[in-house]
Amino acid sequence: MNGRFSVTYHVRSDTAGIEARARGIAVEQSVEMPIEAIDDDAVLSDIVGSVEAIDPVGDGVFAVRIGLAIDTVGDDAGQFMNMLFGNTSLQDDVVLWDVDMPAVFAGPARGLAALRSRLSVTGRAFTGSALKPQGMPVEKMAALAERFALGGLDFIKDDHGLADQRYSPAAERIPAVAAAVARASRTTGHMTRYIPSLSGDLDSMRGQLRLAVDCGLDCAMLAPMIAGVSALVRLRREFPDVVLFAHPALGGAARIAPELLLGKLLPAFGAGGAIFPSFGGRFGYSPDTCRRLAANARGYDALPIPAGGMTLARTAEILDFYGPDTMLLIGGNLLMARERITEEAERFARAVADHPHG
Amino acid sequence: MNGRFSVTYHVRSDTAGIEARARGIAVEQSVEMPIEAIDDDAVLSDIVGSVEAIDPVGDGVFAVRIGLAIDTVGDDAGQFMNMLFGNTSLQDDVVLWDVDMPAVFAGPARGLAALRSRLSVTGRAFTGSALKPQGMPVEKMAALAERFALGGLDFIKDDHGLADQRYSPAAERIPAVAAAVARASRTTGHMTRYIPSLSGDLDSMRGQLRLAVDCGLDCAMLAPMIAGVSALVRLRREFPDVVLFAHPALGGAARIAPELLLGKLLPAFGAGGAIFPSFGGRFGYSPDTCRRLAANARGYDALPIPAGGMTLARTAEILDFYGPDTMLLIGGNLLMARERITEEAERFARAVADHPHG
Repeated sequence: MNGRFSVTYHVRSDTAGIEARARGIAVEQSVEMPIEAIDDDAVLSDIVGSVEAIDPVGDGVFAVRIGLAIDTVGDDAGQFMNMLFGNTSLQDDVVLWDVDMPAVFAGPARGLAALRSRLSVTGRAFTGSALKPQGMPVEKMAALAERFALGGLDFIKDDHGLADQRYSPAAERIPAVAAAVARASRTTGHMTRYIPSLSGDLDSMRGQLRLAVDCGLDCAMLAPMIAGVSALVRLRREFPDVVLFAHPALGGAARIAPELLLGKLLPAFGAGGAIFPSFGGRFGYSPDTCRRLAANARGYDALPIPAGGMTLARTAEILDFYGPDTMLLIGGNLLMARERITEEAERFARAVADHPHG
Repeated sequence: MNGRFSVTYHVRSDTAGIEARARGIAVEQSVEMPIEAIDDDAVLSDIVGSVEAIDPVGDGVFAVRIGLAIDTVGDDAGQFMNMLFGNTSLQDDVVLWDVDMPAVFAGPARGLAALRSRLSVTGRAFTGSALKPQGMPVEKMAALAERFALGGLDFIKDDHGLADQRYSPAAERIPAVAAAVARASRTTGHMTRYIPSLSGDLDSMRGQLRLAVDCGLDCAMLAPMIAGVSALVRLRREFPDVVLFAHPALGGAARIAPELLLGKLLPAFGAGGAIFPSFGGRFGYSPDTCRRLAANARGYDALPIPAGGMTLARTAEILDFYGPDTMLLIGGNLLMARERITEEAERFARAVADHPHG
């Protein structure tokens, strides 16, 4: 018996019903059967979830803290997600709000600190942009990457829509873009990092990542809510020198608090960079959610990466809000410059470098 | 250029804003950048999503049909989920409602028809129960399975909470339960199937499934929304004789219509059995949702499996509703019988066998 970890749910309920509802969640997320049918004393004492606290948080919502047995998790991130929210995700009065993380998920092998040291970037935020649109052939994608990199950006990532498509197969795209970025980096003297997007099942992602490492890359991105969080843990273990960036795709986060899912869980499983839709863009997260999400990520030495409709005009505002331990990811807005992309990327890099950080 | 497939979203909007919002989704789910920054004609004509229809469905909600390029998917189920709902899952005014499935995802290798033939069960629904609570040692779990099987049930599945825990490691549980169920089957003469739950990453699930096959099993369960849908596709390809059952765990957090996610997408990716929380139990799906979900699953030769708080007392009602091409999964309610579990399982099997199907 290893003890318990605490999970907090936000539950819509009236005051009269909340205690029974809380017990219901504790049972659903542990033994998932009527307690009175259990005849094993060890299960009753060690495994059945316990209600640790119930606190009203206003508007007919209660914060319910449940203690779950660490032994139920084994050491698998997927099973951890299952214990946190497997069945309860199907009940729409409950939001998974927060978790006191058990020590088994220790964070990225390489994260923010490694990025600062590898890129020799100190005292300022990182800059990044994205390769899109998907549908372009490999040569065009590589040429775009080169023009971005000539502007002196720190990171150029694949759009998360780039997978293994016939118009741009991963096996051709990764080496071509890596070579283009390396060429530009030799010109600028700044070692811009290319972050390829991994797709498919574990075998496929593993093959793409091996290819990336063979091309001299030390960063890669995956979407753990599509790929499965266990795949993230496995890649972290097999490629400890690679900084893994988590993309939020399919992370819905409607009923899992984004600051928990994107800011805490994915970094704990091994993401050294946490991409998330920032307030003020095309997505609906509030400034408070974004601030907490970024703070959670940094707590795991993971780089917070606000994205999703960021613009060059907002650079100062975003940097003031997030501070230097951040990557600013501006995609579509830079692409608007079309033939002047290198100059626009330069302007972006300069704006970040010149921003006073108090 | 292979043409397009259509995706329908339900979007909350006022009438004045819906056209722009629909175009926004078409862009977000395809090129994810400003159209005016795209200088590639092929991308503009072949890749950018197109708004095919907008129809009000009442209560300030519109059905928006978007055409997406089949080429963007490659043949990966994860990338398909990404194209369907990757970024838009993060926008809370949109529900992924339905998809005209492209032919690349062809359904299970073995499903309902194989189960009918293997178990020699015709003209009636299947019966199943679940091994729980987790926390019990392997011998106790095997003994429980044997008592269930002696009652003549068709299927005994692992609870989805059973993973690879120290109190019941998969490598010990699978052979022990398989042997216990086989022993009982020799006594009853009815070849009850044990459905082990697979957990962990692809390597881990693959190892567990290989072990299961070595133990003579031909069924297994996984939770594709935790494991990653690409892993389901891979296991389907590598183990074409195994009927794969999809558990809905973590499937509720995203705003995807259950009849689509559990009834259509997971079967299309390879699930031959689709477990879902039925109306009238502990979960909130409506009878209409459940009926559509079951019909969708059968369209892929997948067995619909209503569960989540089913009881013996409701057998007739549930059978009348779902008809014979169904597995009735009664877990906790059977376990309430404690030392009389075999008799209760017999009563359940008899009730289903005796039910008149029109």
